[in-house]
Amino acid sequence: MFDSVLVANRGEIARRVIRTAKQMALRTVAVYSEVDADLPFVTEADEAVALGAAAPAESYRNAEKILEAAKSTGAQAIHPGYGFLSENAEFARAVTDAGLVWVGPSPEAIAAMGDKIAARNLMQSAGVPVAPGTEEPLADAAAAAAAAEQIGYPVMIKASAGGGGMGMAVVSDPEQLAAEYEKVTGFAGRLFGDDSVFVERYFPSVRHVEVQILGLPDGRVLALGERDCSVQRRNQKVAEETPCPVLGEATRQRLLQAAQAAGEAVGYRGAGTVEFLFAPAGDGSSGEFFFLEMNTRLQVEHPITEEVLGIDLVRAQLLIAAGQDPGIDSALTAGPAGHAIELRINAEDSKRFLPGPGAITEWVEPSGEGIRVDAGYAAGTTVTPAYDSLMAKLIARGADRDEALARLREAVAGFTVVGPKSNLAFHAELLDNPEFGSGEYDTGLIARMRS
Amino acid sequence: MFDSVLVANRGEIARRVIRTAKQMALRTVAVYSEVDADLPFVTEADEAVALGAAAPAESYRNAEKILEAAKSTGAQAIHPGYGFLSENAEFARAVTDAGLVWVGPSPEAIAAMGDKIAARNLMQSAGVPVAPGTEEPLADAAAAAAAAEQIGYPVMIKASAGGGGMGMAVVSDPEQLAAEYEKVTGFAGRLFGDDSVFVERYFPSVRHVEVQILGLPDGRVLALGERDCSVQRRNQKVAEETPCPVLGEATRQRLLQAAQAAGEAVGYRGAGTVEFLFAPAGDGSSGEFFFLEMNTRLQVEHPITEEVLGIDLVRAQLLIAAGQDPGIDSALTAGPAGHAIELRINAEDSKRFLPGPGAITEWVEPSGEGIRVDAGYAAGTTVTPAYDSLMAKLIARGADRDEALARLREAVAGFTVVGPKSNLAFHAELLDNPEFGSGEYDTGLIARMRS
Repeated sequence: MFDSVLVANRGEIARRVIRTAKQMALRTVAVYSEVDADLPFVTEADEAVALGAAAPAESYRNAEKILEAAKSTGAQAIHPGYGFLSENAEFARAVTDAGLVWVGPSPEAIAAMGDKIAARNLMQSAGVPVAPGTEEPLADAAAAAAAAEQIGYPVMIKASAGGGGMGMAVVSDPEQLAAEYEKVTGFAGRLFGDDSVFVERYFPSVRHVEVQILGLPDGRVLALGERDCSVQRRNQKVAEETPCPVLGEATRQRLLQAAQAAGEAVGYRGAGTVEFLFAPAGDGSSGEFFFLEMNTRLQVEHPITEEVLGIDLVRAQLLIAAGQDPGIDSALTAGPAGHAIELRINAEDSKRFLPGPGAITEWVEPSGEGIRVDAGYAAGTTVTPAYDSLMAKLIARGADRDEALARLREAVAGFTVVGPKSNLAFHAELLDNPEFGSGEYDTGLIARMRS
Repeated sequence: MFDSVLVANRGEIARRVIRTAKQMALRTVAVYSEVDADLPFVTEADEAVALGAAAPAESYRNAEKILEAAKSTGAQAIHPGYGFLSENAEFARAVTDAGLVWVGPSPEAIAAMGDKIAARNLMQSAGVPVAPGTEEPLADAAAAAAAAEQIGYPVMIKASAGGGGMGMAVVSDPEQLAAEYEKVTGFAGRLFGDDSVFVERYFPSVRHVEVQILGLPDGRVLALGERDCSVQRRNQKVAEETPCPVLGEATRQRLLQAAQAAGEAVGYRGAGTVEFLFAPAGDGSSGEFFFLEMNTRLQVEHPITEEVLGIDLVRAQLLIAAGQDPGIDSALTAGPAGHAIELRINAEDSKRFLPGPGAITEWVEPSGEGIRVDAGYAAGTTVTPAYDSLMAKLIARGADRDEALARLREAVAGFTVVGPKSNLAFHAELLDNPEFGSGEYDTGLIARMRS
């Protein structure tokens, strides 16, 4: 086993990885941009290397500086967290080329899943259900219109290189198609350097349900369970829960099998997530699901899976990267227990979700039975506008959904953040929303709450 | 179900009860002494009633004032927490006589277990193993000497009305017996108003292992699992863990059955704890156990049982008090998962454990996967010398003992308390102690660490 790990990330996820690495008696190395010098992940690591300016290109996305930091500190492995370089196949290859251990899937698997059209086709050939849509990049707006006509409106135009809710547009009216096509191709060309797009059927009332998978050194792929991430604002997840409150057991088993097949199709190793659209049937328990995309890294919402299974996914990642079995078979046989919900505590206002960074003068986390907080900040630190607005994740576990909700209500009331704006008031509202309370919500929930 | 509950206690346990009561949509009433006005349990309750001066007789032990507070606020139930009036049979009866719901066992069960000699005899007749000892109060020092001679030295002289480590003395040398007898009877007469004592065999290398029981409204008594509380200083628990690391499964089942029999023998209802001495055999997995005492209330260390079973014991108490089934059969069938350890974070120094109260200027709780903190204080509050020194309980759950220990090490390092003294440094030392690490320790561990 390697004896040290550099975490090429910041905030809560860097702190999260460092915590487990230290528990495993690994030496931990943080890297940080100049605006992050005071954050807990920097002080909690055994060593920390300053990368430079706040701009990601100068710090957390700068592969060269990060590899140099690994070299100068003698770190033997690199954990990329999520975002930044985590799904960059070239970086993954550069890490292994430098003789270091990459805590993630192979560069080939990252690349295969990074191209959404190729991923879609691969999944289809592996027997994983995909939404009706085009199988090749579209030549132009006319080809898109023809495809949309065949699939039936509404459709979604999606950038092949997109993901995480970026580079997509819903078209309900054939007359808007050409304009939206231009927007998405233009955006994708500028942002991803790849303007190829495809068209898929759009389901107006869907849930986003994803499956945590784990590829083991012996080649087996385990499907650990699902997470419902349907509470979204502009395709960004705001709250997640497991189990999915409307998934019947038979459908759940088919979903897990599909995710396992998806992982096996790419020879996946390490922690990954297979995202699906789930369109529940009228009875609320069965329904259709379609492959959406695969995230080849740890997910923000991984803690809820940890909570119901009693496992440590970061530990599993590190062990797998070292070629060892993570030893979670017995937890998987026992199966998930109870219900877990995560709320993303962002530095944004609760009404219109406008970012509100600032210096934190007071920070009091809730605690107690069933409550977990994964925080990137603390009192005396500052949320800067340079990065995303996630300050902390508040996770509650309960014997059932009602208990998890009740615990979250108390915990949200007991979470104090003074300085930056926060969406705690939104979360209090969400927890009392009847649609969310019923469990029968879809990805349009927040839009309806704010309309 | 009653709609409101008054918590006749303070600090972390008052806050703990209020948290669950609010999750159950009960109106919560705190009572507080004048020095506790700023503590979180006071501000977090829906209503709070000032009782008076800090002295327990003027506040948390003042039955009349507490009943008056229940009346003036319309509280329908009283939860006594632990300590103070929680094992006072007269208070329990006064509560029910006032038409209120008492969240605890019957006054008869409290009284039966409060008399240690009667409890010992009752347990013996119920087939629960008791340590060799006298069955009646001793008439004088000569009778004690005769009994000790028959039992064999070393012996323990115990006050019949004692408990919680108070009113007891170990005698190894027959010549010291008379003097120690006078000390214990004098102490018991002054403190408990009852100077009757008895003699028991003393085991020099023993563990303290207790079993959480729950008496249901339908008359069944469930044994939920054991807790090892052998890390003690002067008979005061400092750290607890579950499962007991040296208990073989067959012995464990016998222990749980004995605890269940103990509960059934007194028609126990609600949450209680049956304490045993466990003298492991040479192989470390089998051994003898003997009934020690029964605590007829929630235990400080109840969270570790909650963590491995995924249940809420306060919720169970409140439901049982309302005559409802707490619904934990399925959790019990599934059985405990993983390992949980609790450390008591006290306002005392780490070397000699001298109390060090004070105003808290900085208070940062650790958080993250598997970590739970039940705290009675927060930044800006003050630990006074008026009450016990418990500031918070730090609990870690892991898939196994090693993971729980690793998580605690990080959590202890991340727990900041500035102002009062704290025993965090002692806990860091404990977690790295080889004897504790092996799991094969006994109640003499701390004495050996400090000798």
